[in-house]
Amino acid sequence: MTPGSPHSDAPSAQPLRSDAERNRERIIAAARTVFARDGLNASMASVAREAGVGIATMFRRFPTKEELVDAVFCDRMQAYADAVTAAMDDPDPWKGFVGYIEAACAMQAADNGFADVLTMTFPTAKALERLRNEAYEGMLGLIDRAKATGRLREDFDPSDLVLIHMANAGVVNATSGAAPDAWRRVVALLIQSLEAPARGTLPAPPGHEPLYKAMLRAGQATTSTPTPGKNN
Amino acid sequence: MTPGSPHSDAPSAQPLRSDAERNRERIIAAARTVFARDGLNASMASVAREAGVGIATMFRRFPTKEELVDAVFCDRMQAYADAVTAAMDDPDPWKGFVGYIEAACAMQAADNGFADVLTMTFPTAKALERLRNEAYEGMLGLIDRAKATGRLREDFDPSDLVLIHMANAGVVNATSGAAPDAWRRVVALLIQSLEAPARGTLPAPPGHEPLYKAMLRAGQATTSTPTPGKNN
Repeated sequence: MTPGSPHSDAPSAQPLRSDAERNRERIIAAARTVFARDGLNASMASVAREAGVGIATMFRRFPTKEELVDAVFCDRMQAYADAVTAAMDDPDPWKGFVGYIEAACAMQAADNGFADVLTMTFPTAKALERLRNEAYEGMLGLIDRAKATGRLREDFDPSDLVLIHMANAGVVNATSGAAPDAWRRVVALLIQSLEAPARGTLPAPPGHEPLYKAMLRAGQATTSTPTPGKNN
Repeated sequence: MTPGSPHSDAPSAQPLRSDAERNRERIIAAARTVFARDGLNASMASVAREAGVGIATMFRRFPTKEELVDAVFCDRMQAYADAVTAAMDDPDPWKGFVGYIEAACAMQAADNGFADVLTMTFPTAKALERLRNEAYEGMLGLIDRAKATGRLREDFDPSDLVLIHMANAGVVNATSGAAPDAWRRVVALLIQSLEAPARGTLPAPPGHEPLYKAMLRAGQATTSTPTPGKNN
């Protein structure tokens, strides 16, 4: 019986429901492994294989990849939101801001799937997106505080954090397994570039709408699940 | 008859050879379009479809994806090498260096496939790799010159350029089509971080061997062509 299952204290209850629960947990655990290694482009079929369940069972439990992504990454997104709260507690706003960027980029480096999640959006993954918004709201405060000290350049835009995550995902995806610390050097360069006074002007930030559209597209490209059996 | 074909002035010569040439040109043109749009992960099958040739013809002309990549991207890699030469001609070494990074990143932004090519290596794509080495050798001179003026930070390492291309590829791949100029802001931040005096120390660069291994792996992951008909 799955630990924590609502039926674990009712051994006489529907065994079918229990099997379903067990398969669900098994699929989530497998997806954690596969996505962390291969990123979100990994197919539903390869997750089913890792879980040792049939593709039909897989799609019965998770009819869409969004639902699987929602189930797998909520705890990481919670940790991401918690990192914002921790950064707000730092008495030095600039140190808090820098520490947050490093922590968030380290989460990407530790999990190729989460590296992707931070650069995409999945409208139907309600729990995940609620946590992302919570983190975003907190981050606005973090940015304001760091600007108020004069250490963060004035033209820093909240969307720059998304761009930093996209850049970091590029390095992480390209180097993980072969040069696993390479991202630290790029992130260090980017952080140094954010320190005031700015060394030059910047092209305008992409704007909220176009960036959201880019994240939506990337998410859709990743989750447009091919027909079972068609890939991998 | 294909313009420039060695047989174009011998109308009585083997028509089969001529068809082969024509198909080859058609496949290369299609691959240019497909790779530019979808990056190097695009399947050989989707290139064949775009070219309007059968999958068997496709694999007869290009038995491996490396051979296709070699044929498609040599002219862009030549332009990349030429940009180094142009940068060396700039009387201001720092301006030359910065202009080169901007030009090289713009080439990535203009072509998702070339964005990938600059972060991967393909040992059997001889012509492409010869041009890449030529560009690399030139770039070493560019870096030395920029450091000698005192404008480029002393701890800049040639491998940092690969890391910048990986970061830029992450932004380009995530935003192209929706926020097509977003990369400019990230590249501007990175360039500002490279200006001396450095605002802090950096984690050590990844080293030549690990970075080469990462580029090799990424290339292999992209070109491990699935059996015809198995994907897309």
